[in-house]
Amino acid sequence: MIQPPALNTVPFISVENMMNLVREVGVERFMTELSEKIAEDFRRWPLFDKTPRVAAHSRDGVIELMPTSDGIAYGFKYVNGHPKNTRDGLQTVTAFGVLSDVATGYPVLMTEMTILTALRTAATSALVARHLMPKHVRVMALIGNGAQSEFQALAFKAICGINEVRLHDIDPSATRRCAANLAGRGLKVISCYSAQEAVMGAGIITTVTADKTNATILTDNMVGEGVHINAVTRARIFVEYPPQTRIEGEIQQLAADHPVTEFWQVLTGAVPGRTSDAQITLFDSVGFATEDFSALRYVQHLLKDHPHFDHLDLLADPDGPRDLFGMLLRAGVA
Amino acid sequence: MIQPPALNTVPFISVENMMNLVREVGVERFMTELSEKIAEDFRRWPLFDKTPRVAAHSRDGVIELMPTSDGIAYGFKYVNGHPKNTRDGLQTVTAFGVLSDVATGYPVLMTEMTILTALRTAATSALVARHLMPKHVRVMALIGNGAQSEFQALAFKAICGINEVRLHDIDPSATRRCAANLAGRGLKVISCYSAQEAVMGAGIITTVTADKTNATILTDNMVGEGVHINAVTRARIFVEYPPQTRIEGEIQQLAADHPVTEFWQVLTGAVPGRTSDAQITLFDSVGFATEDFSALRYVQHLLKDHPHFDHLDLLADPDGPRDLFGMLLRAGVA
Repeated sequence: MIQPPALNTVPFISVENMMNLVREVGVERFMTELSEKIAEDFRRWPLFDKTPRVAAHSRDGVIELMPTSDGIAYGFKYVNGHPKNTRDGLQTVTAFGVLSDVATGYPVLMTEMTILTALRTAATSALVARHLMPKHVRVMALIGNGAQSEFQALAFKAICGINEVRLHDIDPSATRRCAANLAGRGLKVISCYSAQEAVMGAGIITTVTADKTNATILTDNMVGEGVHINAVTRARIFVEYPPQTRIEGEIQQLAADHPVTEFWQVLTGAVPGRTSDAQITLFDSVGFATEDFSALRYVQHLLKDHPHFDHLDLLADPDGPRDLFGMLLRAGVA
Repeated sequence: MIQPPALNTVPFISVENMMNLVREVGVERFMTELSEKIAEDFRRWPLFDKTPRVAAHSRDGVIELMPTSDGIAYGFKYVNGHPKNTRDGLQTVTAFGVLSDVATGYPVLMTEMTILTALRTAATSALVARHLMPKHVRVMALIGNGAQSEFQALAFKAICGINEVRLHDIDPSATRRCAANLAGRGLKVISCYSAQEAVMGAGIITTVTADKTNATILTDNMVGEGVHINAVTRARIFVEYPPQTRIEGEIQQLAADHPVTEFWQVLTGAVPGRTSDAQITLFDSVGFATEDFSALRYVQHLLKDHPHFDHLDLLADPDGPRDLFGMLLRAGVA
């Protein structure tokens, strides 16, 4: 683990520095390496402290704290979800996170996570799809073309070998923005007028929407055989952490004992993934704290070769550990 | 609520700026005004979302997240407790916190809370004592002379009118440091060789220790009639939040149904505080999230007249709220 340069400061990755970091590494390489880190941590899933996220719900949204620990490091993410924010020019989701040393309780990294969450969410989706999709698939439908959509498209390109994305959003300007941003990045991009048009010929269907008021995006007859999708229908369902997904995911619509498979067990080989090309597989992704933990560890690792961070004066460091008051006194004199 | 100057930045109070703020306001005025804010929030206790703190325990300590909300603002504190840290020149307790706008989920303040926690803990203890102590008391015993002790002494001076403190610590150098730091601040300071000597003539006994291995500081025959103490014996017991105190406080040694009084109800007048001069009252303080919330709101309020803060580039602010990827793309060109 990187040690802070002084006892009183914590390495801090601002939004600007996160953009520097991602551009320097390259967004596709970043998500590919991050997906490997996520897989690594999924494989040692039983080690992690799986505290449920702590949510504060209000009329317009939710503020959540997502902590976890592997016993050596501790990480948490602060994240909000306010679908109405975009009306006022604000982000639906903003986030930041902290990584700490379990042995001392001292934070060793603080970072913006609005961008990092988009990257880890896309990296996770693509990681899961790579293990569950039929091998020949090269076309993905991407329904919901908001802030996360370009990251999803590029993650599936880099990690799953997708070469065509079929975009649809109820807001055509969102699709235009997404298509424009994806231009020249090695993907064939098709903008579609309807979800039904978007899924035509797609072997993977990814839905990315925050607004629960229009949650039913795919009706049953839109999904063909052998498709891997990220929404609920007749499918073998894969999840991150059942106790959380049954509350937050699409499967909350299903019976509480509807069978689901924990994805980490596919990675360890404990249970099979896709068992036939005709099977419909579904990943009901709600995001889990270990994915943020993996992301925090990954960017911490990157800082060694890409030192895009500041030193945040976050921790009191008196001359003697018990002399907090003396530090306050003498700072006035100095 | 102070609005950040730009959508992408959050006002940040570093350790250095917290020291500037406290010195400019004055430590006694700071704790007095803070205690009023804490009282104000205690009086509207039923309004608060009282999530239990989320603790990650390890061999050497604990890392906790303490969130709460009054429905308008949301606050949380990150705090660790690692008694062994002082051996390596680190603080036992470090902390930072965030205040957010519930309507948008956006953070509106981030601050160091190592110093602020010492201030709010002392302000809370003194606030409670002011309502529970016999009116004539002017002498306090202060057992445990670590990082929080000077703050406790000055809070009881400013808020309760204490004019003499009797110090004791198992480590005499801690007592020497505390006494030296308190010199010339209007308190008579007596350094004592034993806890028994320290409590002689004291109308208030405050114990401040983090190490649970030597938790029994006061034996029953050390406590006289009419004393307000902060440790367990034969006493009428006041607590912040019973579900938390029964797990973390001194009263975990007592039966699960041992009667306790919630201090906020004393403030609202719903239940009486001290009912006779001879009564022994005890505040078993473990710290609660609302106290940190009050502290966050208080320092946010102070920033208006005392602008000791930086602008932290913590939040992504794309030109269009959905254009997170475009922001990343174009930042490279600009």
